[in-house]
Amino acid sequence: MKYVIIGGVAGGASAAARLKRMNEDAEIVILEKGEHISYANCGLPYFIGNTINDRKKLFLQTPVSFGNRYDADVRTLNEVTAINRDRKTVSVKNLHNNKEYEEGYDILLLSPGASPIIPPVEGVDLPNIYTLRNVTDCDRIKMCAADKLSVGASAVIIGGGFIGLEMAENLHKIGYQVTVVEKADHVLTPLDWPLAAIVQQHLIEQGVRVITSNGLQTFKQVDNRLAVVLEDNSELVCDLVVLSIGVRPNTDLAKAAGLKIGEAGGIWVDEYLQTSDECIFAVGDAIEFPHPVTGKPYCNFLAGPANLQARIAAMNMVYPQTVKYSGSVATAIAKVFNIAAASTGLSEAALKRQGIAFQTVITHPAPHATYYPGGKPLHLKLNFDPETGLILGAQAVGPMNVDKQIDIISLLIKHQGTIFDLVNSEHAYAPPFGSAKSPVMFAGMVAENIISHLMNPIQAAELDELLDQNADINLIDVREIQEHKADSIQGAVNYPVDELREFLDDIPNDKKTVVFCEVGLRGYIASRILMQSGFDNVYNLIGGMKTYRLIGKHLR
Amino acid sequence: MKYVIIGGVAGGASAAARLKRMNEDAEIVILEKGEHISYANCGLPYFIGNTINDRKKLFLQTPVSFGNRYDADVRTLNEVTAINRDRKTVSVKNLHNNKEYEEGYDILLLSPGASPIIPPVEGVDLPNIYTLRNVTDCDRIKMCAADKLSVGASAVIIGGGFIGLEMAENLHKIGYQVTVVEKADHVLTPLDWPLAAIVQQHLIEQGVRVITSNGLQTFKQVDNRLAVVLEDNSELVCDLVVLSIGVRPNTDLAKAAGLKIGEAGGIWVDEYLQTSDECIFAVGDAIEFPHPVTGKPYCNFLAGPANLQARIAAMNMVYPQTVKYSGSVATAIAKVFNIAAASTGLSEAALKRQGIAFQTVITHPAPHATYYPGGKPLHLKLNFDPETGLILGAQAVGPMNVDKQIDIISLLIKHQGTIFDLVNSEHAYAPPFGSAKSPVMFAGMVAENIISHLMNPIQAAELDELLDQNADINLIDVREIQEHKADSIQGAVNYPVDELREFLDDIPNDKKTVVFCEVGLRGYIASRILMQSGFDNVYNLIGGMKTYRLIGKHLR
Repeated sequence: MKYVIIGGVAGGASAAARLKRMNEDAEIVILEKGEHISYANCGLPYFIGNTINDRKKLFLQTPVSFGNRYDADVRTLNEVTAINRDRKTVSVKNLHNNKEYEEGYDILLLSPGASPIIPPVEGVDLPNIYTLRNVTDCDRIKMCAADKLSVGASAVIIGGGFIGLEMAENLHKIGYQVTVVEKADHVLTPLDWPLAAIVQQHLIEQGVRVITSNGLQTFKQVDNRLAVVLEDNSELVCDLVVLSIGVRPNTDLAKAAGLKIGEAGGIWVDEYLQTSDECIFAVGDAIEFPHPVTGKPYCNFLAGPANLQARIAAMNMVYPQTVKYSGSVATAIAKVFNIAAASTGLSEAALKRQGIAFQTVITHPAPHATYYPGGKPLHLKLNFDPETGLILGAQAVGPMNVDKQIDIISLLIKHQGTIFDLVNSEHAYAPPFGSAKSPVMFAGMVAENIISHLMNPIQAAELDELLDQNADINLIDVREIQEHKADSIQGAVNYPVDELREFLDDIPNDKKTVVFCEVGLRGYIASRILMQSGFDNVYNLIGGMKTYRLIGKHLR
Repeated sequence: MKYVIIGGVAGGASAAARLKRMNEDAEIVILEKGEHISYANCGLPYFIGNTINDRKKLFLQTPVSFGNRYDADVRTLNEVTAINRDRKTVSVKNLHNNKEYEEGYDILLLSPGASPIIPPVEGVDLPNIYTLRNVTDCDRIKMCAADKLSVGASAVIIGGGFIGLEMAENLHKIGYQVTVVEKADHVLTPLDWPLAAIVQQHLIEQGVRVITSNGLQTFKQVDNRLAVVLEDNSELVCDLVVLSIGVRPNTDLAKAAGLKIGEAGGIWVDEYLQTSDECIFAVGDAIEFPHPVTGKPYCNFLAGPANLQARIAAMNMVYPQTVKYSGSVATAIAKVFNIAAASTGLSEAALKRQGIAFQTVITHPAPHATYYPGGKPLHLKLNFDPETGLILGAQAVGPMNVDKQIDIISLLIKHQGTIFDLVNSEHAYAPPFGSAKSPVMFAGMVAENIISHLMNPIQAAELDELLDQNADINLIDVREIQEHKADSIQGAVNYPVDELREFLDDIPNDKKTVVFCEVGLRGYIASRILMQSGFDNVYNLIGGMKTYRLIGKHLR
């Protein structure tokens, strides 16, 4: 059996390795248009930032070592120009000598990846404007960054996604003044505003300029520097630009060959990762697949799922229809200077777009026992179905243990887990590692209190709407007097929770009551006292002052 | 409704708080025989070791603050001496004045905890021999430790469990020479030997003496010091002893009241945490409950489950039979100097005792991308059902990300998850936080290869049995020549995996073949080549040389 694989790296190389292990007699040809068969694409920003110093470390396997180990015919700088499904061949251009040839296959695997989006704006072809996708891009950026570095040298990152922020950190690290430009109203759009606000604040504290709600208009040459002209006509003069707007799946070959392209714009595959041609499989960034939560196809561009798909496709290429792929819930993380920002499942924005009902809790848990030194709080947002408690998404930001929370929730989302599963979860607890109630367990408990109607939630933005309208509400700060004095929300009266029972007669019961504390726990206790004392319309501010301080408009 | 709670801390105090939130009109009386209602018992070793310096940090709530917040009648130093079920009262002795009284209840909650086991050996009452369970114990040890500290001062810990090792680290930290004595053949018996070996090695490297397979015989006074006499009649002279043999559930009150005691020796409760008397609930260290994997009752002594039980019991005490407890899979962790050691589910030893069939993989994954600096490998052991892939238990040891792996597997064990769920898990990946294949995913893949009969596993101990018997086998080191030269297993021949295909004719096919590499991956590739080239009886050494070096007897 002869297998031809188009594209190396996570998808193609992993599939080839598994194929050979499944079938020692397999004849395997890998056709890669680039120079490298297997490299650490997620590590590239860190090579630019000199966190990874040794360029050799970026290469996991060379074409020769890979070919030897897996008895595979690895041809780099060989670009496939067409798939000829009728005669089961691919047309290949050997970029070493520009000769063209055809290569036959029994089974073909497409792993063509994705390409950076380059916006069709004036000046985009000027020098020192880069995208980052492979080692060649990386080398160019690193060389340019070294060349242009001087006191006051500056770089602009267009696009504040995960990769954009990694580039911001790494260019800052080597000495650049960095500006991040994001068209949306906040960076890291897989995260919602309260959590993204923490990331933005951290970027600013580290000395990175962040411009949001403002897109790219054009580029201009200004002497030997660049001017980035934004939609509001403001200009950023800089020495280096990284375009990090996003990527699009490489579907040209598949399209030209008449393979089915899905509604999300990726190569369509079934659950066995087989395309609309039973002799052709596809994996990685170029495919689309239904999201386990929405059931709707989407493209994700993540290394973990690509590796898993490669393993599954290889199995099905040898033993047809044996292993099913179950989709990705878009779990992602980035280091942003001293914090991590991660998300899984669907954001509030995505849920609204899809018309899916949801409720949200935001908590600010300690990463481990508060009495054990060194802990810095993290911030966790949990989106869930308000009726069933099905977990729809989660986001976390903070200096410690962010990945742990998101990995646990990611696993539950893939298994249609609920907030009750979080409540009943069990974790490895000792003071240096956690608390008796873990952050995810605690968030689950808050969500359970909402679903059980023990507590009515009000989000910071909802409270601000009421305050914008001068709504007639009881707004009660249930923190201690000294906390209330330090800062609070405009118009709030202060009844500390431990004394609240004495003041019940002073609170009018003919209007809505909103209570709040620092993070939400005392507010919950207060709202239980009020609700059980005859108050009908009591709400607790989700995330308390810690959230309100980040995004509230009526701080006192 | 009047609720009486016997015992504070994790179980009783948490239940009282939830009770009040469920029922503002509840009359709540907490009877605690000790001085403190709510303290950080898991933090006590770290107060002794001065990692926690401020004693006040150990107290989460005072009786007064707790009483105010939850409108509860908190009576510390009030010991319950009997439960009078016929008249629904408890007999109480007020330790302030030694007066006795009866207190009526509608619903009673037992949260009496567990007590340290004190072995009935000669000399156990000598001064400077301590157990550690509460703040009073902690204060005594801390005072004694300060008093006895001098150059050469030494401490002996009897019992090398999680708490014993935390005490070893903390006494070492303040200047003691520490010896840990463990009756079993290795410390941390919830972990199996290969992983426990890493912990023991680390303890020794840090300067702690470890004595195993040797129990306590007696204590003797030697001038103003103590001699610990062991079963082999050897003596350890020291200044301070901590008995950390284990704890037993406090069931005396329940027993005397005729409540059902279960087969594991804890207070029997149903899934609503109700005892055999419908007006009495019980939570925490004193109860037993079926293990989700074995279905057999056992006692665990963990803070996380106690907190959850308190929440559930409180709900059922207000709204009968509304929330079920699903049991604990015994997930635990300890910091041991610079590494963490954690376990969940059942160890190999426990599985053998219970006659449950299992298979095991041991992996040595990097905690994050190998090209990203700072990663130190961890060690993961996964026990699973060899037919269904059901996960039965897992253990991890290492300096980074140990808790994350165990939390994920713990969640799966609670949900009857399989190794296929690990393979299909999704995690937050960026180079500083993980690898494209996470440690648990990778372990799941190895397990899947075994279940799918793609690879036959052989454990280090099984190989040693063959070597002990001088069995006639092909033993092949498939690492590179320089690796083989550095160290290997006695009698191994060296065919590097990338050249193995050339040497197939040199390997006799009339006997068992065992291949090995450094961690197991190249061994797997080699075993696939051999198995697909007509070799019938091929085994891959699980965990490779990294495991064999720890526990193997035939190192070359």
